[in-house]
Amino acid sequence: MPGYSINREDYLKRLRRIEGQARGLQRMIEDDKYCIDVLTQITSVTSALRSVGLGLLDEHIRHCVMDAASSDSDHGDAKITEAVGAIERLLRA
Amino acid sequence: MPGYSINREDYLKRLRRIEGQARGLQRMIEDDKYCIDVLTQITSVTSALRSVGLGLLDEHIRHCVMDAASSDSDHGDAKITEAVGAIERLLRA
Amino acid sequence: MPGYSINREDYLKRLRRIEGQARGLQRMIEDDKYCIDVLTQITSVTSALRSVGLGLLDEHIRHCVMDAASSDSDHGDAKITEAVGAIERLLRA
Amino acid sequence: MPGYSINREDYLKRLRRIEGQARGLQRMIEDDKYCIDVLTQITSVTSALRSVGLGLLDEHIRHCVMDAASSDSDHGDAKITEAVGAIERLLRA
Repeated sequence: MPGYSINREDYLKRLRRIEGQARGLQRMIEDDKYCIDVLTQITSVTSALRSVGLGLLDEHIRHCVMDAASSDSDHGDAKITEAVGAIERLLRA
Repeated sequence: MPGYSINREDYLKRLRRIEGQARGLQRMIEDDKYCIDVLTQITSVTSALRSVGLGLLDEHIRHCVMDAASSDSDHGDAKITEAVGAIERLLRA
Repeated sequence: MPGYSINREDYLKRLRRIEGQARGLQRMIEDDKYCIDVLTQITSVTSALRSVGLGLLDEHIRHCVMDAASSDSDHGDAKITEAVGAIERLLRA
Repeated sequence: MPGYSINREDYLKRLRRIEGQARGLQRMIEDDKYCIDVLTQITSVTSALRSVGLGLLDEHIRHCVMDAASSDSDHGDAKITEAVGAIERLLRA
């Protein structure tokens, strides 16, 4: 079970909202909304995605990484390297 | 007409793809996919959104800001201030 | 003359402060300061740099891009493409 | 001892280089260098700072957080919350 499974429903709810926002962006484009208003909405969706990512990362470190480290130090080290790589990709997205 | 209207179909296509990715993220959560794989997919959606935002910004400066500046210098100045504010929000999203 | 020259002294002052912060970071490392406090300071320097970058970008669009566009539409277009490229690099830094 | 102390000299070297880049930026402004070239250099310094931050974070999780977690689960939890907060601030810098 992945670390986020305790809050699965919360994540699904947030992702459904993000999906709805992506549909809303299409309507804005179809309705010729002002560019800056579309950009503001894109910023809001990006921010919501980042927040979901940070939540998943928190639970990943709290559960998967910790479990790995407590059972086998090398395995824990590999999990930390992997998590930091994911943070780096998130920073440069 | 907003600056992006020339490429409207292209933006709609990219946003439909982003909407599909947001649905795909929900399936990943439902299927207990590995946290790091979900994070990688979140990075990919964030990057796609950023790219749409940059495209809109490019056309906004190229059309709306330029038109405003050529008709009235003060109006152009106000449009530039507004566009830089949108860039700042995008940077901090 | 670049667009930022009107506020040259202000930019120099902010960059001297950033240089001082980079020296302060070295002292923190030499003094074994707590990792999270060093990270908070890194965030603060990054944010100060971003803010200088946004200021330069604002004046670049307001002066260089506008001047280019008013003298020659193709030259203006090339300047906008170049500026959007710089924004994209800043976003992914 | 903080987690980064093993690589202290490496971090100091990178921060001295960043300090030198901040001085180089002042020279660029004094010499009226082209805005886009200054922006490219700002992007490079930002990226170098981010990279130092990610390195510190890696060692913080690998050492401080792991040590805390292995001695006391509540203390480990608090350290993870603190580290994720630092990542969030880095993302929004």
